Amino acid sequence: MDSSEALWVDFKKPIVNAEDYFASLRGRRMNVFFMGERVSEPVDHPVIRPSINAMAETYRLAGERPELGTVRSEIARQPVNRFLHVPANPGDLVTKHEMQRELGRRTGTCFQRCVGLDAIGTCHSVTFDIDVKNGTKYHERFLEFLRRAQAANVVIGGAMTDPKGDRSKAPHQQSDPDLFLRVVKRDDKGIYVSGAKMHQTGAVNSHWLIFMPTMRMTEADRDWSVVGAIRVDAPGLTYVVGRQTNDTRIVDGGAMDAGNAQFAGQESLIVFEEVFVPHEHVFMDGEWEYASSLVERFTTYHRSSYVCKTGLGDVLIGAAAEAASHNGVEGVSHIKDKLVEMTHLNETIYSSCMAAAHQAKPMASGAYLNDEMLSNVAKHNVTRFPFEIARLAQDIAGGLIVTMPSEKDLHNNEVGPLIRKFLRGRDGVEVTDRMRILRLIENMTIVRNAVGYLTESLHGAGSPQAQRIQIARGMKIEEKKARARKLAGISQSAK
Amino acid sequence: MDSSEALWVDFKKPIVNAEDYFASLRGRRMNVFFMGERVSEPVDHPVIRPSINAMAETYRLAGERPELGTVRSEIARQPVNRFLHVPANPGDLVTKHEMQRELGRRTGTCFQRCVGLDAIGTCHSVTFDIDVKNGTKYHERFLEFLRRAQAANVVIGGAMTDPKGDRSKAPHQQSDPDLFLRVVKRDDKGIYVSGAKMHQTGAVNSHWLIFMPTMRMTEADRDWSVVGAIRVDAPGLTYVVGRQTNDTRIVDGGAMDAGNAQFAGQESLIVFEEVFVPHEHVFMDGEWEYASSLVERFTTYHRSSYVCKTGLGDVLIGAAAEAASHNGVEGVSHIKDKLVEMTHLNETIYSSCMAAAHQAKPMASGAYLNDEMLSNVAKHNVTRFPFEIARLAQDIAGGLIVTMPSEKDLHNNEVGPLIRKFLRGRDGVEVTDRMRILRLIENMTIVRNAVGYLTESLHGAGSPQAQRIQIARGMKIEEKKARARKLAGISQSAK
Amino acid sequence: MDSSEALWVDFKKPIVNAEDYFASLRGRRMNVFFMGERVSEPVDHPVIRPSINAMAETYRLAGERPELGTVRSEIARQPVNRFLHVPANPGDLVTKHEMQRELGRRTGTCFQRCVGLDAIGTCHSVTFDIDVKNGTKYHERFLEFLRRAQAANVVIGGAMTDPKGDRSKAPHQQSDPDLFLRVVKRDDKGIYVSGAKMHQTGAVNSHWLIFMPTMRMTEADRDWSVVGAIRVDAPGLTYVVGRQTNDTRIVDGGAMDAGNAQFAGQESLIVFEEVFVPHEHVFMDGEWEYASSLVERFTTYHRSSYVCKTGLGDVLIGAAAEAASHNGVEGVSHIKDKLVEMTHLNETIYSSCMAAAHQAKPMASGAYLNDEMLSNVAKHNVTRFPFEIARLAQDIAGGLIVTMPSEKDLHNNEVGPLIRKFLRGRDGVEVTDRMRILRLIENMTIVRNAVGYLTESLHGAGSPQAQRIQIARGMKIEEKKARARKLAGISQSAK
Amino acid sequence: MDSSEALWVDFKKPIVNAEDYFASLRGRRMNVFFMGERVSEPVDHPVIRPSINAMAETYRLAGERPELGTVRSEIARQPVNRFLHVPANPGDLVTKHEMQRELGRRTGTCFQRCVGLDAIGTCHSVTFDIDVKNGTKYHERFLEFLRRAQAANVVIGGAMTDPKGDRSKAPHQQSDPDLFLRVVKRDDKGIYVSGAKMHQTGAVNSHWLIFMPTMRMTEADRDWSVVGAIRVDAPGLTYVVGRQTNDTRIVDGGAMDAGNAQFAGQESLIVFEEVFVPHEHVFMDGEWEYASSLVERFTTYHRSSYVCKTGLGDVLIGAAAEAASHNGVEGVSHIKDKLVEMTHLNETIYSSCMAAAHQAKPMASGAYLNDEMLSNVAKHNVTRFPFEIARLAQDIAGGLIVTMPSEKDLHNNEVGPLIRKFLRGRDGVEVTDRMRILRLIENMTIVRNAVGYLTESLHGAGSPQAQRIQIARGMKIEEKKARARKLAGISQSAK
Repeated sequence: MDSSEALWVDFKKPIVNAEDYFASLRGRRMNVFFMGERVSEPVDHPVIRPSINAMAETYRLAGERPELGTVRSEIARQPVNRFLHVPANPGDLVTKHEMQRELGRRTGTCFQRCVGLDAIGTCHSVTFDIDVKNGTKYHERFLEFLRRAQAANVVIGGAMTDPKGDRSKAPHQQSDPDLFLRVVKRDDKGIYVSGAKMHQTGAVNSHWLIFMPTMRMTEADRDWSVVGAIRVDAPGLTYVVGRQTNDTRIVDGGAMDAGNAQFAGQESLIVFEEVFVPHEHVFMDGEWEYASSLVERFTTYHRSSYVCKTGLGDVLIGAAAEAASHNGVEGVSHIKDKLVEMTHLNETIYSSCMAAAHQAKPMASGAYLNDEMLSNVAKHNVTRFPFEIARLAQDIAGGLIVTMPSEKDLHNNEVGPLIRKFLRGRDGVEVTDRMRILRLIENMTIVRNAVGYLTESLHGAGSPQAQRIQIARGMKIEEKKARARKLAGISQSAK
Repeated sequence: MDSSEALWVDFKKPIVNAEDYFASLRGRRMNVFFMGERVSEPVDHPVIRPSINAMAETYRLAGERPELGTVRSEIARQPVNRFLHVPANPGDLVTKHEMQRELGRRTGTCFQRCVGLDAIGTCHSVTFDIDVKNGTKYHERFLEFLRRAQAANVVIGGAMTDPKGDRSKAPHQQSDPDLFLRVVKRDDKGIYVSGAKMHQTGAVNSHWLIFMPTMRMTEADRDWSVVGAIRVDAPGLTYVVGRQTNDTRIVDGGAMDAGNAQFAGQESLIVFEEVFVPHEHVFMDGEWEYASSLVERFTTYHRSSYVCKTGLGDVLIGAAAEAASHNGVEGVSHIKDKLVEMTHLNETIYSSCMAAAHQAKPMASGAYLNDEMLSNVAKHNVTRFPFEIARLAQDIAGGLIVTMPSEKDLHNNEVGPLIRKFLRGRDGVEVTDRMRILRLIENMTIVRNAVGYLTESLHGAGSPQAQRIQIARGMKIEEKKARARKLAGISQSAK
Repeated sequence: MDSSEALWVDFKKPIVNAEDYFASLRGRRMNVFFMGERVSEPVDHPVIRPSINAMAETYRLAGERPELGTVRSEIARQPVNRFLHVPANPGDLVTKHEMQRELGRRTGTCFQRCVGLDAIGTCHSVTFDIDVKNGTKYHERFLEFLRRAQAANVVIGGAMTDPKGDRSKAPHQQSDPDLFLRVVKRDDKGIYVSGAKMHQTGAVNSHWLIFMPTMRMTEADRDWSVVGAIRVDAPGLTYVVGRQTNDTRIVDGGAMDAGNAQFAGQESLIVFEEVFVPHEHVFMDGEWEYASSLVERFTTYHRSSYVCKTGLGDVLIGAAAEAASHNGVEGVSHIKDKLVEMTHLNETIYSSCMAAAHQAKPMASGAYLNDEMLSNVAKHNVTRFPFEIARLAQDIAGGLIVTMPSEKDLHNNEVGPLIRKFLRGRDGVEVTDRMRILRLIENMTIVRNAVGYLTESLHGAGSPQAQRIQIARGMKIEEKKARARKLAGISQSAK
Repeated sequence: MDSSEALWVDFKKPIVNAEDYFASLRGRRMNVFFMGERVSEPVDHPVIRPSINAMAETYRLAGERPELGTVRSEIARQPVNRFLHVPANPGDLVTKHEMQRELGRRTGTCFQRCVGLDAIGTCHSVTFDIDVKNGTKYHERFLEFLRRAQAANVVIGGAMTDPKGDRSKAPHQQSDPDLFLRVVKRDDKGIYVSGAKMHQTGAVNSHWLIFMPTMRMTEADRDWSVVGAIRVDAPGLTYVVGRQTNDTRIVDGGAMDAGNAQFAGQESLIVFEEVFVPHEHVFMDGEWEYASSLVERFTTYHRSSYVCKTGLGDVLIGAAAEAASHNGVEGVSHIKDKLVEMTHLNETIYSSCMAAAHQAKPMASGAYLNDEMLSNVAKHNVTRFPFEIARLAQDIAGGLIVTMPSEKDLHNNEVGPLIRKFLRGRDGVEVTDRMRILRLIENMTIVRNAVGYLTESLHGAGSPQAQRIQIARGMKIEEKKARARKLAGISQSAK
């Protein structure tokens, strides 16, 4: 028995369904804070719960549509949740993307399980490459870790983004060395890491975290070149859940005002204070030369994962069409034309992500990786088109999305009847249904889930400029210039 | 003494400054509701107060920069607040627009006094035209009303948008006749109106309201063809203040979390139940043929008034530049390029609005009206460019705007120090200053004032399609076709 | 021996390479007109020749890169040129698209062989479906035709677009029945067709043409519901080659002024006057119900075929980079950024086309068809992005592309030396090379090959609105609305 | 009598109308080359003549609409052609822009007289400033020159763009000092200049040229810091007229094929070989510190002058509407919507240019200059919107614009009747009229006048990046940041 085995003892019984998942989150001793207060039980916190519901859909889908949500793994030698699977062929990535779109449609938000999924694929190949070069045993360790995770069917989160401090400086040059996560101590059992990770998607809702470096490292950054897996309730971890737009509306308004009462995303700041990682869960320690390929592979996977936003796009297009129907204008030519434009943009994103999956290539470990250029192109479209889709949805919905009275006013004796009288749409439409659909559009374009649909679409998996840098690297400009010279009748390149 | 004089008794003493204005709002008996509860004193309501602060800036500006905020009126024969002035030459409209941009810069939100201003200009010319045709006395009445309002320096709100019900039907065809505001009774003292007005900007913060029809009327819609002025505390009026994104954050988070703690906009639903209007305050009653020109003139004024958004744009561009400075990247070429793009789009809006003012034309009453084509073009640009400016601001600001811990966490002993440690930017920048500027960007792009900067930019003064219809009407396509035929060598038009 | 066999006698010896192809075009008796004159030998006509060169590249590619340009067909049971292959799996479509991009890179223009290719795939499945329903023998006939064409390695053109006359009327309602191609006579040997086809790509450079209806037909349009194959030199055919921008510059200027002297596209008007088609070459005659699926399948294939424009995009990006290098500004940040943007747009088109190939589905005949939604989305992007890519190329290239002296001026003793003195770029760059690359950019953005890169990208395979109609049909709006209702908490659809 | 007087002897009799203008161009001894040949009489050259016709419209307009085309000058103390007038108030610039739009509508191309006009305004203020500082007499000389030019009513061209060679080097650092125009000799009568100017609009069609430096100079660039006026037929000048897209179609096709047979633009390379300039015509010689403000003022004037493109836009919108009418689809909703979009974009350009005129400010000399920020914004919109307008025009027009047979085919006995049969549109439309309007659209979007409407819109008066640099300079970012800080509650700027 290795020293890590004890860490798995709580996960002996695999999580099968959403109820198991909720149960698995209860009773953990974690330092979770939100709005200045310690959250004793996140599962019961009204603002956090919708994010847990969204994560739970990844279990529900596996039960309801196993062809989409599960896949046989040759690691665990059994069917596993697809969020725990290393892609073994392009088809695996294609189905992964279909699953992501479907979960986007089901939740209308970020379901938070993709970072860990993409970390798994990345670690599989990078540990393999390090071992081949250095004779280390990272890959074997990683496989063993993954096998256990697959068997237990846990949620693995991925933690990458460091605070970075002064962006013109490398980790070892920062005045505060903790501004990048690093190894602060080593002993015969394992390593101890300190620092922080920011914008961590769904961390509080996970069971394990894989932490990874956030950028290219230099030799002097050895201590910062570290990858490992830890339990989210490991001693030394503190979580500060970030505020989202209108996160508290579910509390102060109600289900209708929330727009999408059931589902939401979650991001938090995680602080690490001498967190212990046993050797068995360390997958890189000092191999700074591999940090850049780790980051490139992770972002290549993860940028295509933004196909999920086309699922949100489906919901928003549907909501806009429903709102138009409530107003009796669904058949008007400019409305139809806007719905077509929204669909065109949404499917363009989808096509880029899918092409990046279909044209995946194998790495040395056997894991398949999306086409790098197309994955960057896909994400770059995600930084643009949802904003236009959202604008068009608001155009169709009308100004009422931002001037509508609260659900609570409906229940007031004096003004409730007035609202019902004056907010009605075409005959046959319930006033409350009209309000609900407008609140959903508000939710996705300017309120809580706009965080995921818009801002996260800009910055998740790298900001727009990060994609442009990768596109510049991959654009084979010399080859293109040679083609142009040939057609122009130029015999050779200028000096 | 006319029967309306009593209604002015509370305004004997003119409002001079912001403090007078706040005082003038207190102690009124109004039926105001928000989130299911009656609001006893809106001035003291933490969610409503920022919208009153924004309105108050129109008084402050008049004191601090009288050349911008005031103008001599030939009606009151004295200097008046520019928000109470009928434009008497193109220069009046030019300065009006400069004032609006400046107020946008000061408040970062909608300061709510333009609807009433544009209603004044509209009523001036329409009442004149009706009187010339019909021998009525509306214009004289209106001038008297305005003279008093100028002397008292009150806030006049404008109320136009009816609920509309089934949009394929005229007012008189609706199953519920109240779906458009209408005269329900007449007696020798005046008229009584019932119905509702939606999306009413700053109504609760006003002293008087001018109500107007919302669209072209037919002969059968005589009772719905009505214009008049009422006090906002007139018996029979009920206000339901609409919810805005994150309106309650000021309560549950604090000043920093709010992003712009001081200023916000306000929209409400106003219900009219047999509200009395004395003859002296009735400016149209049954002259349905004038409803369409009233609407066209109002929208022509009001679409150019959206120049205020360039003031918000100034703030947002500045905030993005400040955030970039905090991150130490202000000099990076792609950041600079994005700031230039934001400025280019912002100044394009400005140029369209200003051209529409400079090329204003006089109407029969002597009031000047913005160029109709250019005003529509200006507003149409407002339905597009702020969305792109907001996207670029978020691009520069980074994902932290939507994942940042609450201000309350800063005050927590356990996590406060951790946040201060990890959220710092370049040397010399206070963590709290960094957080403040990011919250301001959040505020304007996805939180409370995004309502005004984005959604209201789409729908205020008419949705995009409304501008396209006006552009189509004004585009002189036959003249353009003749020019093309001439250059193409075609001797005559096809049959 | 069937009556069609004589028509194949000239093609006994298969065309193997480009030289064979040129030879195969010579000496045919065709009625070809250009600029008011009969063209006795198109192969030798300086304006037409570049279009023949472009077509010839499809033969060259097959020789040089057989994995791309050829494929084993189960119809001929031998390797055939990929332009004569019916796609038998998604991979066939994927490789087809790679071949099209490569030919775009090689020629910088339209190589004209895709219409026929896409007609083959379409006829394969439609004839199969008709036979299954009606017991006809069209599929067998078609396979025999195709087998012969594959063996002979001929160029098959496709002819679809009718003149259409009054677009609000069906074929049988037109005042002139010839405005849609139709059967005017039938006898025991075959049928006789009259009418015209417009915008016919590469027709003069082909050996055979497959003609097809251009839109949905009604029962009264039986005589217009006709598909068949004819030799391009069949009696009764007349070709009027259309003018292209600057088509004559190759004559009046020279190779350098032409920009791309070697390659160009070609479109012509084909008039049919009682052209005989033996029964063996008739693949539909009267089955009007199948016209709409024929058109839909053809456009689905053909809209994805516009992936070729990404090959032109590669050339144009390379040319812009080369021009920037000549000016010594390739490393300037705004130049690099524009090259990245061009690449991003180009690869977005590519990704949409490739996704449409990878997600192809089989039809009853076994032929695979691109995903319909994605193919429409792909083409719709082609109607937009090349215009922006071209604008950026001109931005980088500078105004000299439209103000540069002629190549002939270079050879003039007086001004030649002056041009060489003043038009030089950075050290090490030949003035003539600089001029060549600028002429290539001119060629692709505003001169002869802009026809193919821009206007044809708009209108080929259907104008933008045609794609929007298909997107509207395929966007599953009811399903999307149901998703939105579910998340909004609405129990059922409004009536 | 000053030594320059002899140079004016040919212009004793003022040019009054277009006929006088044509006469004035005849018989001059100029070194003009086109396509490798010396052009003996440009007025009679079929390719050059349309550009002369366009220039002649500036005389015709003055006769037909004197309120637009003429203005009283306080310099000549008489009415002068507006193209020779120094703007003395904002209204002068406003009317100038209306004149430019009208000439754009009349010619559908570049009428070439604005560069000289904007050079006049610039020299007026710069010479004044130099004299004030240095006690020179440039301003007096310039006024005398202008007075004579106004009296003679000649065309003054402006010459600014130098070849520039290695763009990273100043003029005095170039390996060939002639790569910027410079003084090579001075004697008691005047100076002698050598070098070249590129992309010179309408130079061959002018009577005089004002040459100016093209960019900021340093002290070592004194000899390159020179401004003066010369006759276009001065000894030592050579012109090479540049090729334009399809410039020869007027010769090889005919009037219809040309699309706009009457009007076109013109750009040429001008080489200066020791060209003598008498002192009286030297307006700067060595005052290198003023080169940058000269360039900034010129571009500020000239960028707004691109309002002329809205006149071309009017023609193109009209042509698209006419083409739609010929096809019987003018009332279709997507067509109408595209015409509205084209108009919106066109009027947005107009509004920016007009705002820049209305908000003009006076300089020390009394000349008014457009608002710098708005002028840059206006031109920046011109680098974008015409491309989209052109794309939409092609969308509406259909593919026939690039596949249509030549006019010559119409006259051929065999194919003429076929074309008339098959190219007809809706009833009542002449086939030739349909062809003419399509050729006009081709002309403006992909053929000869696309040079002016598209490429020149990009690069004339400075490429897009030049405007971005000016916008960056003028955007007052510190002021904007201060506004943001204030609203965010930040007390002071970060260090």
